[in-house]
Amino acid sequence: MRPDPGRERRKGAPEVIFGETKETAQVIAMAQALLAGSGRAIISRMRSETKEALLDVFRDYTIRLREAARAMVISRPDFVRPDTGGHVGIITAGTSDVPVAEEAALVAEEMGCRVTCIYDVGVAGLHRLVGPLRDLLSNDVDAIVVAAGMDGALPSVVAGLVPVPVIGLPTSVGYGLGGKGMAALLSMLQTCAPGLAVVNIDNGVGAGITAALIANRVAQARKHPLR
Amino acid sequence: MRPDPGRERRKGAPEVIFGETKETAQVIAMAQALLAGSGRAIISRMRSETKEALLDVFRDYTIRLREAARAMVISRPDFVRPDTGGHVGIITAGTSDVPVAEEAALVAEEMGCRVTCIYDVGVAGLHRLVGPLRDLLSNDVDAIVVAAGMDGALPSVVAGLVPVPVIGLPTSVGYGLGGKGMAALLSMLQTCAPGLAVVNIDNGVGAGITAALIANRVAQARKHPLR
Amino acid sequence: MRPDPGRERRKGAPEVIFGETKETAQVIAMAQALLAGSGRAIISRMRSETKEALLDVFRDYTIRLREAARAMVISRPDFVRPDTGGHVGIITAGTSDVPVAEEAALVAEEMGCRVTCIYDVGVAGLHRLVGPLRDLLSNDVDAIVVAAGMDGALPSVVAGLVPVPVIGLPTSVGYGLGGKGMAALLSMLQTCAPGLAVVNIDNGVGAGITAALIANRVAQARKHPLR
Amino acid sequence: MRPDPGRERRKGAPEVIFGETKETAQVIAMAQALLAGSGRAIISRMRSETKEALLDVFRDYTIRLREAARAMVISRPDFVRPDTGGHVGIITAGTSDVPVAEEAALVAEEMGCRVTCIYDVGVAGLHRLVGPLRDLLSNDVDAIVVAAGMDGALPSVVAGLVPVPVIGLPTSVGYGLGGKGMAALLSMLQTCAPGLAVVNIDNGVGAGITAALIANRVAQARKHPLR
Amino acid sequence: MRPDPGRERRKGAPEVIFGETKETAQVIAMAQALLAGSGRAIISRMRSETKEALLDVFRDYTIRLREAARAMVISRPDFVRPDTGGHVGIITAGTSDVPVAEEAALVAEEMGCRVTCIYDVGVAGLHRLVGPLRDLLSNDVDAIVVAAGMDGALPSVVAGLVPVPVIGLPTSVGYGLGGKGMAALLSMLQTCAPGLAVVNIDNGVGAGITAALIANRVAQARKHPLR
Amino acid sequence: MRPDPGRERRKGAPEVIFGETKETAQVIAMAQALLAGSGRAIISRMRSETKEALLDVFRDYTIRLREAARAMVISRPDFVRPDTGGHVGIITAGTSDVPVAEEAALVAEEMGCRVTCIYDVGVAGLHRLVGPLRDLLSNDVDAIVVAAGMDGALPSVVAGLVPVPVIGLPTSVGYGLGGKGMAALLSMLQTCAPGLAVVNIDNGVGAGITAALIANRVAQARKHPLR
Amino acid sequence: MRPDPGRERRKGAPEVIFGETKETAQVIAMAQALLAGSGRAIISRMRSETKEALLDVFRDYTIRLREAARAMVISRPDFVRPDTGGHVGIITAGTSDVPVAEEAALVAEEMGCRVTCIYDVGVAGLHRLVGPLRDLLSNDVDAIVVAAGMDGALPSVVAGLVPVPVIGLPTSVGYGLGGKGMAALLSMLQTCAPGLAVVNIDNGVGAGITAALIANRVAQARKHPLR
Amino acid sequence: MRPDPGRERRKGAPEVIFGETKETAQVIAMAQALLAGSGRAIISRMRSETKEALLDVFRDYTIRLREAARAMVISRPDFVRPDTGGHVGIITAGTSDVPVAEEAALVAEEMGCRVTCIYDVGVAGLHRLVGPLRDLLSNDVDAIVVAAGMDGALPSVVAGLVPVPVIGLPTSVGYGLGGKGMAALLSMLQTCAPGLAVVNIDNGVGAGITAALIANRVAQARKHPLR
Repeated sequence: MRPDPGRERRKGAPEVIFGETKETAQVIAMAQALLAGSGRAIISRMRSETKEALLDVFRDYTIRLREAARAMVISRPDFVRPDTGGHVGIITAGTSDVPVAEEAALVAEEMGCRVTCIYDVGVAGLHRLVGPLRDLLSNDVDAIVVAAGMDGALPSVVAGLVPVPVIGLPTSVGYGLGGKGMAALLSMLQTCAPGLAVVNIDNGVGAGITAALIANRVAQARKHPLR
Repeated sequence: MRPDPGRERRKGAPEVIFGETKETAQVIAMAQALLAGSGRAIISRMRSETKEALLDVFRDYTIRLREAARAMVISRPDFVRPDTGGHVGIITAGTSDVPVAEEAALVAEEMGCRVTCIYDVGVAGLHRLVGPLRDLLSNDVDAIVVAAGMDGALPSVVAGLVPVPVIGLPTSVGYGLGGKGMAALLSMLQTCAPGLAVVNIDNGVGAGITAALIANRVAQARKHPLR
Repeated sequence: MRPDPGRERRKGAPEVIFGETKETAQVIAMAQALLAGSGRAIISRMRSETKEALLDVFRDYTIRLREAARAMVISRPDFVRPDTGGHVGIITAGTSDVPVAEEAALVAEEMGCRVTCIYDVGVAGLHRLVGPLRDLLSNDVDAIVVAAGMDGALPSVVAGLVPVPVIGLPTSVGYGLGGKGMAALLSMLQTCAPGLAVVNIDNGVGAGITAALIANRVAQARKHPLR
Repeated sequence: MRPDPGRERRKGAPEVIFGETKETAQVIAMAQALLAGSGRAIISRMRSETKEALLDVFRDYTIRLREAARAMVISRPDFVRPDTGGHVGIITAGTSDVPVAEEAALVAEEMGCRVTCIYDVGVAGLHRLVGPLRDLLSNDVDAIVVAAGMDGALPSVVAGLVPVPVIGLPTSVGYGLGGKGMAALLSMLQTCAPGLAVVNIDNGVGAGITAALIANRVAQARKHPLR
Repeated sequence: MRPDPGRERRKGAPEVIFGETKETAQVIAMAQALLAGSGRAIISRMRSETKEALLDVFRDYTIRLREAARAMVISRPDFVRPDTGGHVGIITAGTSDVPVAEEAALVAEEMGCRVTCIYDVGVAGLHRLVGPLRDLLSNDVDAIVVAAGMDGALPSVVAGLVPVPVIGLPTSVGYGLGGKGMAALLSMLQTCAPGLAVVNIDNGVGAGITAALIANRVAQARKHPLR
Repeated sequence: MRPDPGRERRKGAPEVIFGETKETAQVIAMAQALLAGSGRAIISRMRSETKEALLDVFRDYTIRLREAARAMVISRPDFVRPDTGGHVGIITAGTSDVPVAEEAALVAEEMGCRVTCIYDVGVAGLHRLVGPLRDLLSNDVDAIVVAAGMDGALPSVVAGLVPVPVIGLPTSVGYGLGGKGMAALLSMLQTCAPGLAVVNIDNGVGAGITAALIANRVAQARKHPLR
Repeated sequence: MRPDPGRERRKGAPEVIFGETKETAQVIAMAQALLAGSGRAIISRMRSETKEALLDVFRDYTIRLREAARAMVISRPDFVRPDTGGHVGIITAGTSDVPVAEEAALVAEEMGCRVTCIYDVGVAGLHRLVGPLRDLLSNDVDAIVVAAGMDGALPSVVAGLVPVPVIGLPTSVGYGLGGKGMAALLSMLQTCAPGLAVVNIDNGVGAGITAALIANRVAQARKHPLR
Repeated sequence: MRPDPGRERRKGAPEVIFGETKETAQVIAMAQALLAGSGRAIISRMRSETKEALLDVFRDYTIRLREAARAMVISRPDFVRPDTGGHVGIITAGTSDVPVAEEAALVAEEMGCRVTCIYDVGVAGLHRLVGPLRDLLSNDVDAIVVAAGMDGALPSVVAGLVPVPVIGLPTSVGYGLGGKGMAALLSMLQTCAPGLAVVNIDNGVGAGITAALIANRVAQARKHPLR
């Protein structure tokens, strides 16, 4: 990956370094390039040895850790994270879906959104969902990411209840036929609920960016209504 | 298919002639063999020309039609359908699931069960489900078949709410990736809900037999408690 | 399908009758129910005999036809289609993708959006894309649907260029391995481009609803900035 | 997983902690929550380090180990396991199917059933099956779980012989095309035998719950025949 | 297909013209070439119009029809079918498997074998199998073809019982997941029974040739023991 | 696996202990049971620790090792391996196919056959094949196993050239799409060559048994021609 | 499809109208656009009604028909087909592969190549291949397309023998598992032979263009050696 | 692998030892055989222990290492690598595609080509592509290999722009549905771009050989124009 300084400006979305398949040295080089450009580097799914190395190399920078997502944000002291006023909701069906959901949360925050997380609301416990969902809506949430593995039913349920766009985020949870997120993804693609779009299995970064793009666009309209 | 007169006695479940892939002459011959044996022949998914021929050939017999399932029951005048006292509930997510559900209903009735049908309750309309489900339970339903295509979420929802065994019946409704019942079947196999077992896509007959076997066993226990 | 009069109000998205797998009588009944409720019925992928019957039965209503999508909108004379001020762009890679794209366009229009269509821009002809895309952006498009079959590369290209959310709509165009939209869907799920979410193969209705939900939310913020 | 104290009462089935993908600390926290609620915690597929930790942390509780299933039941001293009078049979095709079968057995026992296990009866050795099956039936078995990998033929054979519901439990045994339980699952779904429903590959817990729900319902009818 | 006159001599197996995908004119030309070469032409899965044309064109030849397999053997008046003394058994699980089984029977007969057919012995009716199988063995059968669709369990059962090679012939019978012969083929590949080899779904010709090659080799050894 | 002493007599094929998925203690117990029965135990795909243990435990028995197949034959001193006079040929496309081929060779030898191995003859080197194949045929080979991974073309080529039955043995060699033996298996199932039947990927034992059953039947006919 | 007049000049390859999925009116409009541009329109897989219409509409143009490929070339009277001096060989395994091969031949010819076709050379008849292949090479063939369905073995065999690039063209011939060209494509992808690249199933146009691009480049080098 | 000394001469392409699945001793033996034959041995995807051993064993030979591809070329001191004058371009979409691309580069170089590499040009950064591509063309590149994982869009884009043959090389980069190179391969097979042929996932050697065969043929024509 050669950093593309123009992309963040053009797209309104930061590049994220996917740490899982990269050597520590590669991650460091990419982070330095991004820091030199936009002033901030986001790394997801760090290996533990990479994390230690980054903490050491960038000890003079501002570091923000998100352990569950094995993610880190490094920023130059002078970097000011935007505050757009957009509001993104992130919901998970189970605890196993949390790491991927946290990726989405981190990215949406770095794109300037307020993020509200509601974790571990299974279909079996729909009664747990109603209250928090009502709170989200009354707080003007602009887009909602719903992460689910296994049968992946929760995003459809949420999309059937709320008048905002929902991003289905299948997670690689499940076993046997339809396991590793396959049934979850297929269910979301087959949904009868209106207004549900999906990203690939475990693509928390993609879900977060899409939700934040929506929220930021709404927030911008609130600020510049005449445009 | 050579009719197996002992099977119905041994299993407590009738043989059902699958009409879709059979010539009219084959269906007539099989029906005659079953009538000579148990006194009753059940035919599902009849071609329309087969239906006409059967109505003609067996005009001296008692005929029961179930149009939606393209099914027919032919019985000798002296045949007495059992009345076991078992109670089976059959629920569908949408209208497209009804033909397959009707197959299940027909078979359960022919096995002597009372059958209560609740059709067209989607996940999007869960509020429609609560009342009828409460009625089913207060009427001592013994087993519930839930038919669903598309994302196949309804059986999991039902299984999460009721204390009786649920048979998931995926239907070949849906398109694109996961279509033709595939997502529905996978979702049911991936369910987190306890007590949900499944049959193959569109296997209404199998779902009906399984539910009726359960219900009849319970009913028998009610009648012969000391056994 | 039992019409759910509350859904349109709750979700801000109309129910659409999928005509391809339904009998004419079923479609008429559903249309009547929707007309009695919201005052409007939308039917997609009508069979030709259904279309003739609808034109006859509803000859006293306002009819709007969209031939390419085999779609029809029937509305009561007193029905006033909303005008939200949202703006949705719809782009196709080839001519074969147009029918599905038209479904998306129709639904977005019925949800009150302005819709701008740019058809037949293949990856091989990217130079054809740049101008119209610039026009879309300078006209404050809020969300873009990109329909593509075959290799499905166009949505990624568009998502890499624009700062608004993109909905990838794979179409069942293609043959051999990866045909019928499979390669297109997989490519969109594997995209490196930020801010691309997808719906199932040929799900024009779903893509249109999602895009319109986004656009309407932005438009609402423009109108009520203080909220 | 947030424990749902109402579920066990509502469903008549306990929650089971799936140990394989959870950290020891997570398992301990969940077990504590379940113990505080229902007075009992069931853990399946424990990692060995988790097992040691649980034995230590809960040394003042009653512990029941089932090594083959890598399962443990922890109960408060005052917890009284129910005894419903239901009777579940559990059969395996080979020795490799035993661990998954043991999961089913454990769960059925914890739900109050008597469980009879018949292990290692392959299709190649059908003569080994007849005697034990006759014993099961003469002891009023209410439901039978049949676990099989490879070609998965045994559940169909059993379902063809007995008048009680059979739950097919495919196991991830097998190699090459159709391996890891795929052929077993497909065979069970394609069965010609009446009254066979299935759960997903290796889902011993689900099979056990379904069988116990059936058996408990029958047992309850025996006790309360007038209801 | 250009006829290869040397192949039949080299392989001891005739070429068979697959009629289903060929024009009538192509079939006639191929048949003429084979008649000019070996003196015999075998056509399987003829379209009905092809059959009529062949009966007309070759009315001066000896014609042998096998209706169930839609097969025809045309031979020059001077052609003498071999009589090798080999003995092939052909068993089917159901009636739907008969057409494909008949293909195997026809080919084995044309290769000079005695063929014994046992049709419609399902796994559910194993007791029907024992007697005929004992007869086959006491008549020195050299190889057995077992055709089965659905769950494809019968070939494994037979292979577990007899000391001769068994050729599993999956048929495209079945629906839903694993349908069209897929589950049948996978089950046969996963078999635990010794001495079961398989051919592709519906490949009756291939099964017949393999079984006849075995039988003819054994028969030859009987005739020329000293070799 | 409970040893079935009758099977070897009934089938003429020994049971083989599949070592890869079994604990050393299980293997030892099974070996002891087989030794007590037939006087011989065959173990394939031993783990290295199992091999050491077996060498120690059975140091008073006759041991035969086949390193490439990670296989061992343990026999009682009084056990006499049969010598049937059957002749099996075993051919591999590459060196990576040898371990699986050696399994087939070992089993055929233990069933009393003479085995001739021709290894590493790829399709690219067909000229290497002709001579050895001619030798095989002039030495009255009764059946040929052809092991191949990658594109799996060799079995078809051999089956097109020889008048004896050929058993295709796909091996899990290959990468990318169609890798792990999938393309090899599919190619063999799609063959145009007459007289080719297949076993599952890496099922060397099954291929060896089938070939030996054929060869032994021929050999028996040579010895007892009048039967 | 909007015709792209620059493409043919830029790429050296003509656009081909795929007739199978297009209305007659669409094909006529596209043909007119291409004729106006480059002076020539190529249509493949015409429906029969389209063919009749084209013959009528373009009766004043030069028409070239290729029946087997259902293809037509329409050219303005003043159009001069290039003659590059490139030489492409096209080989098929069977007769069923000819229509797709003819597509490749037609396209290569229209790109200015000399095309030599060798049809119906199966793997079973490799001796038929050697002579024509030697002729091809001694006539300086620049690239060879090999079309094959079923097991798809022929392209590997050819690529193993010749020192020129080979394009594997799988055809949708075959049935059961691996049918419709799947096994053929996978085999070609798994080939051990050097210098074999593939196109998708039935993509005769793509194979022809690739082969002609290679041949034309070589031919150009022959004409302009100093460049 | 028995080395085939004639192949390199016959095909104009060297044999490459695939190190990943071979023992060090096997690799050494093969390398010695190839060195004795052609004077050069190429090893790809060496394990690290194999690399060390080779460096030691062949310390008197000329060694060329290509670390990214884990590849090594060993040559006898008297071996002279050919210099054909052919020119191959190699492009990658991302950094993760480089190791596989390097395999292609190495092989093309060893076949005597000049190789120009352009790495890390994603679809998102098409503007980075235009300049280097123009350079390639103005330097008379004869064939281009384009390596891409994820959505695999780059090869189609390149093939749409250049008049030389393009070899698509999908790499096993990507996750979730369509991951491990599957979406990349399918996209390339579905391409609308003319003149794109593909090899299997990660088959860098195959792509390099095909490109070099093309380039060498062109170069030869430049040198011997009159032939």
